[in-house]
Amino acid sequence: MLPNIPYTNHKRVVIIGAGFGGLALAREIAKRDDLQIVIIDKNNYHQFQPLYYQVATAGLEPSSIAFPLRKVFQSRKNVHIRVTEVSAIHTGRKSVETGLGEITYDFLVIATGAVTNYFGMKEIEQRAIPMKSVAEALALRNRMLQNFEDALSVDTADEIEGLLSIVVVGGGPTGVELVGTLSEMRQNILPKDYPELDFSLMNIYLLEGVDKLLPVMSEESSGKSREYLEKMGVKILTGQSVTGYDGKYVTTRQGMNLRTDNLVWAAGVKANVLNGINPEVLVKGGRIKVDEFSRVMGYQDIFAIGDVASMSEGEFENGHPQLAQPAIQQGKTLAKNIWRALDGKPPVAFKYKDLGSMATIGRNKAVVDLPFFKFQGFFAWLTWMFIHLISLVGIKNRILIFINWIWTYITYDQSLRLILKPKILQPGFVEEPEPEDEKAAGV
Amino acid sequence: MLPNIPYTNHKRVVIIGAGFGGLALAREIAKRDDLQIVIIDKNNYHQFQPLYYQVATAGLEPSSIAFPLRKVFQSRKNVHIRVTEVSAIHTGRKSVETGLGEITYDFLVIATGAVTNYFGMKEIEQRAIPMKSVAEALALRNRMLQNFEDALSVDTADEIEGLLSIVVVGGGPTGVELVGTLSEMRQNILPKDYPELDFSLMNIYLLEGVDKLLPVMSEESSGKSREYLEKMGVKILTGQSVTGYDGKYVTTRQGMNLRTDNLVWAAGVKANVLNGINPEVLVKGGRIKVDEFSRVMGYQDIFAIGDVASMSEGEFENGHPQLAQPAIQQGKTLAKNIWRALDGKPPVAFKYKDLGSMATIGRNKAVVDLPFFKFQGFFAWLTWMFIHLISLVGIKNRILIFINWIWTYITYDQSLRLILKPKILQPGFVEEPEPEDEKAAGV
Repeated sequence: MLPNIPYTNHKRVVIIGAGFGGLALAREIAKRDDLQIVIIDKNNYHQFQPLYYQVATAGLEPSSIAFPLRKVFQSRKNVHIRVTEVSAIHTGRKSVETGLGEITYDFLVIATGAVTNYFGMKEIEQRAIPMKSVAEALALRNRMLQNFEDALSVDTADEIEGLLSIVVVGGGPTGVELVGTLSEMRQNILPKDYPELDFSLMNIYLLEGVDKLLPVMSEESSGKSREYLEKMGVKILTGQSVTGYDGKYVTTRQGMNLRTDNLVWAAGVKANVLNGINPEVLVKGGRIKVDEFSRVMGYQDIFAIGDVASMSEGEFENGHPQLAQPAIQQGKTLAKNIWRALDGKPPVAFKYKDLGSMATIGRNKAVVDLPFFKFQGFFAWLTWMFIHLISLVGIKNRILIFINWIWTYITYDQSLRLILKPKILQPGFVEEPEPEDEKAAGV
Repeated sequence: MLPNIPYTNHKRVVIIGAGFGGLALAREIAKRDDLQIVIIDKNNYHQFQPLYYQVATAGLEPSSIAFPLRKVFQSRKNVHIRVTEVSAIHTGRKSVETGLGEITYDFLVIATGAVTNYFGMKEIEQRAIPMKSVAEALALRNRMLQNFEDALSVDTADEIEGLLSIVVVGGGPTGVELVGTLSEMRQNILPKDYPELDFSLMNIYLLEGVDKLLPVMSEESSGKSREYLEKMGVKILTGQSVTGYDGKYVTTRQGMNLRTDNLVWAAGVKANVLNGINPEVLVKGGRIKVDEFSRVMGYQDIFAIGDVASMSEGEFENGHPQLAQPAIQQGKTLAKNIWRALDGKPPVAFKYKDLGSMATIGRNKAVVDLPFFKFQGFFAWLTWMFIHLISLVGIKNRILIFINWIWTYITYDQSLRLILKPKILQPGFVEEPEPEDEKAAGV
């Protein structure tokens, strides 16, 4: 394997990661033809993280919230996309080591984001379902659908309760939105699909370490989301620190013991850092310390943006919140600064503009905090939908998601309840040859 | 595991397989509340086979052409769906052996369809990609997309030719529609997505054993489809019998040697027969010989419909064509006959009504044979789309597919080009824990 990236007399910018930050940077910087851009990602698509929970709850297809990178850059001949992983950075010879070989850079941008943080709890890491990729969201969907099927074929209430119940750890937007949708499914769809099952055995728990939900949002939003969810029958347990999970019971330091076969871990992230960066620049959460120009401390030609970076700015002493907006804004500012560097101009300092935050809880129910205005309920829910639709990449994705949402709203029905088995999706998949001497086959 | 199907004083009809035949039967027969219906399928969804090729070519999502069975029967309390495989039929004690245990029946309907037939060629069975399920279609899509990525990182023209080229064996509708769409992608999309690749190295071959394409259709349709495809740059090789495939070259008895890493096998099917049926009732193609009431020869309470059954009727001495229409019609007639049996009435003989056949080749290009009228071109293409849209299960599927088609038509673009990796779709998938002592991680 060779990276096969042509050598030109243009400066080469290598961007690792095509999440919100990397993509925003790449789209902007690629406009300048005298730069060669190399984008490295382990997937051939960009993922829209705010809607993972709808993939997990069978409301949207992965393809609706993932967008092929090559399509974004179809008209840009100066962009080279390589689908591979980076194993190390060689800062000395200005190159990155990838699955396809070594790729040199003039400017390197680390936009590798964050990964799930289990805080060292191996037992949970091995058994919990994370929610940090569209693929993991799909895994959760498949698991829950298979559980409902399995619940038909066991014969103790304890087994049924374990299969149907779910414990979601983490009271941020992902956790709140996930349990909200699950409780609506328990109300509207599941009893129709499985009239043979007793859904009073399906417990939906939401656990949070601090004493309120949506801790980074306003008191109003935090309180209202709890009120909504409790009315919908979600069991909310705040001030609980999960300490263990044996596959049957989730235990907390505060003495809770919750029966479930399904633990979803949305309780924290840590920076996704690469080998080769001086470990002394790593700060809280494993993030890379950068200056106000997104430059990694001690390097002139290496930058970090988004969740993986920690920039001190005003109130954000330990870095900006690990959300889409700071990543996108840092990506755009960095594009400008790389241009300025090429033109011999000094860089401009990054300034974060807080556009607000929001979360949706269910039908007609959302909470929105804008910088100077907070509101909840139906209008917040419309705002949430509008903002998410316009933030998506691709017009077709917007249309299809819009139709899906209208459909779900009218019918109360998430309709993508297919269990797609794993082995069959393998690129080189070949079905097991059937024994030739028997006439048998399965259905 | 227990099947857990409640015992009632109603007669129980067990249907194995929810393809076109099994689903048509189940929907009809379930209308009568004094029957208990058990549907057994290895998937929790019904698959719309005529559009597999659009899943394979990134035009449609699997969920658009697969429909959750439980949704179809939501309002039918007398229907019990079990997602499992049948390993054997015990005709003596009137039961079927499943992955969940034994399920007894009063009437048993075998609607297990057909599986890919490799005609005993192990080498091909191990290396070829079949097209008999939505999952296999998705596997082909993932394979081709991954190949394009890989082709960027090899350095001989031979390797690139192998990765990009495809040999499709079987000149029926699946083969014709698949190569037609692939050649349009080669023309319109792939050079934009991969400006670094030389698509003149991408050969698209369609091989057929007899001397024409679409052999069951009219001479006009057969000739026109060849003309269309050849204009689109597909290399059509008729009168070729494939004898081997070593992973690099497809060889034929007639001496051809075609370079490809991708062999698609759409060249034949054989009945998917279960253990426990008297082998003497199996006829050509492994199909189960049934009488004009779909009764398996020698049994009073076992029926077979669709691809797995062989009924002699008029010109169809060796059974009806293995297509959707005969299966659907047999399912509906059998529903009626089971009702008649319960009411003490004699059964009515099945009469096949040929509604015609059709295939689409590309934009504005299709061939349609109606019983008394044949036509090709733009109007045939509109007809093809209309018939396929109304044949789908689910209004939402129809809307979404219609929008997808309009979108593709306007933009010349199949947009679902995501490579979803296999392991991540596993129900119990847990990401490999990263080594804690290294700071490394991938992108």
